[in-house]
Amino acid sequence: MSENNKIGTYKFVAEPFHVDFTGRLTMGVLGNHLLNCAGFHATERGFGIATLNEDNYTWVLSRLAVELDEMPYQYEDFSIRTWVENVYRLFTDRNFAIIDKDGKKIGYARSVWAMISLNTRKPADLLALHGGSIVDYVCDEPCPIEKPSRIKVTSTEPASSLNAKYSDIDINGHVNSIRYIEHILDLFPIELYKESRIRRFEMAYVAESYYGDELTFYKDYVGNGTYDIEVRKNGGEAVCRSKVIFVEK
Amino acid sequence: MSENNKIGTYKFVAEPFHVDFTGRLTMGVLGNHLLNCAGFHATERGFGIATLNEDNYTWVLSRLAVELDEMPYQYEDFSIRTWVENVYRLFTDRNFAIIDKDGKKIGYARSVWAMISLNTRKPADLLALHGGSIVDYVCDEPCPIEKPSRIKVTSTEPASSLNAKYSDIDINGHVNSIRYIEHILDLFPIELYKESRIRRFEMAYVAESYYGDELTFYKDYVGNGTYDIEVRKNGGEAVCRSKVIFVEK
Repeated sequence: MSENNKIGTYKFVAEPFHVDFTGRLTMGVLGNHLLNCAGFHATERGFGIATLNEDNYTWVLSRLAVELDEMPYQYEDFSIRTWVENVYRLFTDRNFAIIDKDGKKIGYARSVWAMISLNTRKPADLLALHGGSIVDYVCDEPCPIEKPSRIKVTSTEPASSLNAKYSDIDINGHVNSIRYIEHILDLFPIELYKESRIRRFEMAYVAESYYGDELTFYKDYVGNGTYDIEVRKNGGEAVCRSKVIFVEK
Repeated sequence: MSENNKIGTYKFVAEPFHVDFTGRLTMGVLGNHLLNCAGFHATERGFGIATLNEDNYTWVLSRLAVELDEMPYQYEDFSIRTWVENVYRLFTDRNFAIIDKDGKKIGYARSVWAMISLNTRKPADLLALHGGSIVDYVCDEPCPIEKPSRIKVTSTEPASSLNAKYSDIDINGHVNSIRYIEHILDLFPIELYKESRIRRFEMAYVAESYYGDELTFYKDYVGNGTYDIEVRKNGGEAVCRSKVIFVEK
């Protein structure tokens, strides 16, 4: 298979209600587009959720890291390219490039996925799935950003707290992956977004949360524009962790 | 001009993070698509925001009413048709039809827009704009739903309250029109969405609110599955009003 067939390319435009007060696409919307592209790419190659559901398996996002030089501006066209970097027994690495209206690469993203059985909730062996055909799509396209890091939060003083509401919940009954990103972005004052922009954003999805769960946000400032965040549910278990790196504009 | 040229048709798919826990598209996402279609349609005909901005005018959404038999389900294709019903001196009525994957009309929407000068914030005379050419697009396509009604809320006990955050704010520095819809949907317990669905949703945008504003939500139940909602800012002025009509599934 040619390397080109292994990469999917998808086109978007920065819609008015998908940009923030600076006119740039929000990280939540970009995250949504990245996950959709992952779905399109997998579906077109026969290992998408619809095919897997027949066998009662589904994809679960474990890690996401996005690093950007800039974000598309309102009404600008942009595109996202995605490909599979690695397939292990229990995880696969999927990468992305974000390309601006002029064809310039403005950022990259890395993601890590597992597949679970909907019956047992246990992880599936990716190398056994469909006769291991997913490995045919492994591609050596470069993705020059660091892998998702290990995030550890020490703060014991909550930065904020909310109860998961109707709009937070997805078709699986869980708080949706994109809503966590939006709630985390809302931890920062608008002044920070005036002077700086997000250079790198990481999410580690650890456990599920549900309608009515109290989500409490803990935030450490670790210097150099870098914040580590942990979201815990109902006073206990961590549901996700995030690292947000701001740089001056 | 043929009636067909006056109507714009735009295609969508119900994306995974755009559906709620029942697998149906959310009203907030549908609202976003409707407003985008309004923008596409106006732009293609020379009276979009980009053209107007040259003259320092912009469109302002005043009213929106949506009425639906059903919502598209996850991964389903659907389309939206939009046309101009009336042009008055200070307002124009734009209608929409929502069409499911099989070409069946599953709902309609009505919207009312004004145009304001960005310099004076005063409304512009639509009949004078571009030599009144907008009236050439007036179209008598039927839209068999009621016009937006007058909403009056009497409750003095807040249903909930929040401060406008980063993710709420649009490129104009205001809380964005779609976020109000999402916050209003979050006033209702998930149990209500299990037994019933939204048959009709209305918004009247009254005033602007800004980052940090305290938004307080007042909700009257007026019988027959109908709720009237008013959002006030900083303990005073109303910023928008909404009517939500639920029917049993």
